[in-house]
Amino acid sequence: MGRWEPESRRRLEEAALALYGERGFENTTVAEIAERAGLTERTFFRHFTDKREVLFWGAGALQEMFVSAVAAAPESATPLEAVGGALAAAGALLQQRGDYARQRQGIISACSELQERELIKLASLAAALAGALRQRGVKDPAAGLTAEIAVAIFKTAFDRWVAEGNQMDLPGLMRESLEELKVLAGG
Amino acid sequence: MGRWEPESRRRLEEAALALYGERGFENTTVAEIAERAGLTERTFFRHFTDKREVLFWGAGALQEMFVSAVAAAPESATPLEAVGGALAAAGALLQQRGDYARQRQGIISACSELQERELIKLASLAAALAGALRQRGVKDPAAGLTAEIAVAIFKTAFDRWVAEGNQMDLPGLMRESLEELKVLAGG
Repeated sequence: MGRWEPESRRRLEEAALALYGERGFENTTVAEIAERAGLTERTFFRHFTDKREVLFWGAGALQEMFVSAVAAAPESATPLEAVGGALAAAGALLQQRGDYARQRQGIISACSELQERELIKLASLAAALAGALRQRGVKDPAAGLTAEIAVAIFKTAFDRWVAEGNQMDLPGLMRESLEELKVLAGG
Repeated sequence: MGRWEPESRRRLEEAALALYGERGFENTTVAEIAERAGLTERTFFRHFTDKREVLFWGAGALQEMFVSAVAAAPESATPLEAVGGALAAAGALLQQRGDYARQRQGIISACSELQERELIKLASLAAALAGALRQRGVKDPAAGLTAEIAVAIFKTAFDRWVAEGNQMDLPGLMRESLEELKVLAGG
């Protein structure tokens, strides 16, 4: 990539989110995004396959981070401790992009096609986490169930964080949801 | 409805599932389903809005049953006990239709459009369960988290049941997954 590439990507992303927020995802074209960013459509397509990918390219990176964190957990960690570490790491990553995350969530909530895409990404995350747990020697159904629980915790903490205007500490909310789970399961 | 109506519905459903299994969901038309069932297309559309609904009409009934069971749980029941009762009831209902459930799952696994629909139905179930728990006075984030956990248990037990050729007792698998959750959360 040339030296301005990451800057173009960021500008395209900002322009896209602004337009999706103003006129809705469905009513925005790639040409309009490129124009708002002061770039060409060709440059847009060097960075993103389509206008939806602007909202979802980060999900792949998040999933990789989750899987690496589970793999890197100490050998002695229980399945839930292994995903707990991954949840805290994911929370820290998202916390750095709080404004983006809130803006993105508002756009997704307003469009059923995007909501469906988000559900698919979360299902894919659960499958990847279950695979990472099996790699650690966790048997089924514990591996699959732990992965689903991790995604449940992630969703609960994330939704709460966005609802509160991203003012709270997301890694802390992740830990809180995990503790809440223990209370619920013990009760 | 006329006296043969439930019978027509059953015949259409059987014909649809057989055809989806033979040639795939995408490659089956409503005309073919009606023909296989020995009925008219008009009769098909009296029962189902489209060919996808043949696979999903039961999800609404399942969701209603879940919500009623949560509402009907004893006042002293913890949130997890309330959903635990609902899971056992749902398991018993599905157990009666084991062959159908396995056949349906095979069709859904083969088609991404149907998988997306299934994810949406599960997200809708989680939202309905969270609502039913709030009605019982359960606060957030516990209500939302318990609902997500219930769906995680449901998916885990159901997938296992289908993978094992529906030979196992589904309500028993639901209870087992719930116990597994407690072990995982305690560990």
